[in-house]
Amino acid sequence: MKKVHKGIMLIIDGLGDRPIKELDGMTPLEAARTPCFDALAKNGITGLMDPLSPGIRVGTDVGHLALFGYNPLKVYWGRGPIEAVGVGLELKQGDVALRCNFATVDENLIVMDRRAGRIRHTSPLAAALDGMSLQDGVNVTFKPATEHRAVLVLSGGRLSAEITNSDPGPANEGESLQEVRPKRPHMPLAEKTARLVNEFVRKSHEALRDHDLNRERVKKGLPPANIVITRGAGMAVKMRSLTERFDIKGCCVAAESTVIGIAQIAGFSVLTNEKLTANIDTDLDEKARLTIEGLKEADFVVTHIKGVDLTAHDSMLDEKVAFIERTDRMLQKIINDLKDPQDTYIAITADHSTPCAIREHSADPVPVLIHGEGVLVDDVEVFGERACARGGLCRIRGNDFLLSMLDMMGVTYRFGS
Amino acid sequence: MKKVHKGIMLIIDGLGDRPIKELDGMTPLEAARTPCFDALAKNGITGLMDPLSPGIRVGTDVGHLALFGYNPLKVYWGRGPIEAVGVGLELKQGDVALRCNFATVDENLIVMDRRAGRIRHTSPLAAALDGMSLQDGVNVTFKPATEHRAVLVLSGGRLSAEITNSDPGPANEGESLQEVRPKRPHMPLAEKTARLVNEFVRKSHEALRDHDLNRERVKKGLPPANIVITRGAGMAVKMRSLTERFDIKGCCVAAESTVIGIAQIAGFSVLTNEKLTANIDTDLDEKARLTIEGLKEADFVVTHIKGVDLTAHDSMLDEKVAFIERTDRMLQKIINDLKDPQDTYIAITADHSTPCAIREHSADPVPVLIHGEGVLVDDVEVFGERACARGGLCRIRGNDFLLSMLDMMGVTYRFGS
Repeated sequence: MKKVHKGIMLIIDGLGDRPIKELDGMTPLEAARTPCFDALAKNGITGLMDPLSPGIRVGTDVGHLALFGYNPLKVYWGRGPIEAVGVGLELKQGDVALRCNFATVDENLIVMDRRAGRIRHTSPLAAALDGMSLQDGVNVTFKPATEHRAVLVLSGGRLSAEITNSDPGPANEGESLQEVRPKRPHMPLAEKTARLVNEFVRKSHEALRDHDLNRERVKKGLPPANIVITRGAGMAVKMRSLTERFDIKGCCVAAESTVIGIAQIAGFSVLTNEKLTANIDTDLDEKARLTIEGLKEADFVVTHIKGVDLTAHDSMLDEKVAFIERTDRMLQKIINDLKDPQDTYIAITADHSTPCAIREHSADPVPVLIHGEGVLVDDVEVFGERACARGGLCRIRGNDFLLSMLDMMGVTYRFGS
Repeated sequence: MKKVHKGIMLIIDGLGDRPIKELDGMTPLEAARTPCFDALAKNGITGLMDPLSPGIRVGTDVGHLALFGYNPLKVYWGRGPIEAVGVGLELKQGDVALRCNFATVDENLIVMDRRAGRIRHTSPLAAALDGMSLQDGVNVTFKPATEHRAVLVLSGGRLSAEITNSDPGPANEGESLQEVRPKRPHMPLAEKTARLVNEFVRKSHEALRDHDLNRERVKKGLPPANIVITRGAGMAVKMRSLTERFDIKGCCVAAESTVIGIAQIAGFSVLTNEKLTANIDTDLDEKARLTIEGLKEADFVVTHIKGVDLTAHDSMLDEKVAFIERTDRMLQKIINDLKDPQDTYIAITADHSTPCAIREHSADPVPVLIHGEGVLVDDVEVFGERACARGGLCRIRGNDFLLSMLDMMGVTYRFGS
């Protein structure tokens, strides 16, 4: 029986950055006061990590797939299936899942409000659509998600996820509902699936436009949720989850639905509650508390922080520095509360860089570290993009970093004899 | 609309080397006075680059394929198709292209001169072969290239490029014309293609041996170009070019035909003229001028320097050092003439190392750098093989280096959402 150690992996979304003039040429992480991160760097092993590979700019979904043990080049699920798992649906081989919004259209099917006034409590509306039958023997599963969001799953027969969106997109409110089409010509399965999604969207309008709940909304002057619009079609790829592969118990502390969905795909339980907002107003003390709680049952707890990425997308320099410092204090609190600190490995990583100067994800590698018994401590003394470039892990990929952490925890298997 | 920056990538062919006793244990690059390269290293990010992967010794074609965005393990075109594109031919799916020489054979088909006295102006000879019909409904396209060189393309029906050369090779002048054969047994398409190439070679002899131009050459005591010999068969692989993939305008400044062919495959326009010789007598001021000219239209200009590699193949130490110094001055001239230096990224790389001591390509990684706004400047202060081993890019592969440069230029796309 192998000895298994506990592990915490902190994913700081969008952590990496570039030198900034206003910070005297430092990055936000280099400028931030991070005594906890620095102590872990000084007594741990550090490096640079490319989420996928150098020069590839990744989305939050791809970055997290890599950190949860998947190769996104082989198994890119698409957002639909990730959200579907996030709301508790189990996808069967061949199912196509789509992200949906309850929306408001006028009589000419112009999309007046993509979120139907950010409607909440949509269960009665979803119930009117769940279980619907479409042509060709295809069945609908339809579940509400957070706020105006929902998930559509089509099952039965051969389908394809290579279809466009009926949602005109955030930049195009006031435009018509889009007809769903195959992404490329000569794809008969995609043509069939597009036709079925168009049928569903039309039927959703028929079922919702005179729904009692919408009559009440109109009376109150609120936009009616009188149609469902779709995007992000994808197919689930059946493969062994990370927790099955290494026979471990995983727990994820997060509020962001994509991260939650990917964690569930990877076989992790999820700890979340309303104090966690996936925004800068989140309660990091609560996140620390849930991390310690997760460690009671799980071998491996992944704690996700969204706020740093959000500040960078808005180019809010000082807020990025401040949120990094809050995250540092959160991790110190976790360490203080560890039941068995000697037997707990700690990793810090990120899903990608989000430089404030460009306000979007970049391909710059992110700094990483692993702290715990037996790691080959290097001579890097602080946690930062440039300091970690000289670290003992050298330059490593997301998937490989995860496996290196799991290997220190003693949960990996020998390949070969 | 994303903000796109301009970029220049300087490829110094065969730059990397090993410590040399005569240079006090320094490499030619370490020994050379390179104030421009060193300033870029000091204010940029540096690293080591393996063209393909560590320990793999690559040819000029493979090194450049990687630097122009292809994975040579997946899409190795072979030299024939690269040369075909270089002379302006468009290959169709399934075409087989071969590099050819006009050569001189005696009546027993002994190859007396593989280059027919380095004949030039072969258009009349090529015209006698272009459009020829072979068995099985296969058609010939035949175009002259530089000096004694030419390109043969076979089209029509199913063919294979897995065939040997009719050219006995540079070491074997005075040997017989070789019969083209399949590279391995039990390959019916390769057997068919080999038969067709043998038919072409025989017919080229019939068409050329009494050609007026050859009668004149014999009268003047010159070897007649009385046959075409073949090598480097390959098939084009249809895939998106680099410029299509990132929707950029590329321009390549080069004189070497393989580099020009690969640049054209990658969708680059080419700037070249007779002042550029792909040799040590090339006009580097002209190369600097063309680089600046290329930047007017193109987002990304790749400038190729061949001389450094040639000196290393001939083990001419001092000449290698001197040519590196000339290249450094050329780059300084380019930088001085930049219209918008703040908005132009500069990369320096090489297609492979060519150590003077072994006089051929080696698998030693090459030093690289990227200079421009926002790069994570490391503490490397000079541009050299050993200094760059401590750089912030760490150790990176050719394709990944290119993508990292393009990512800084802001032309890459996000994978995932």
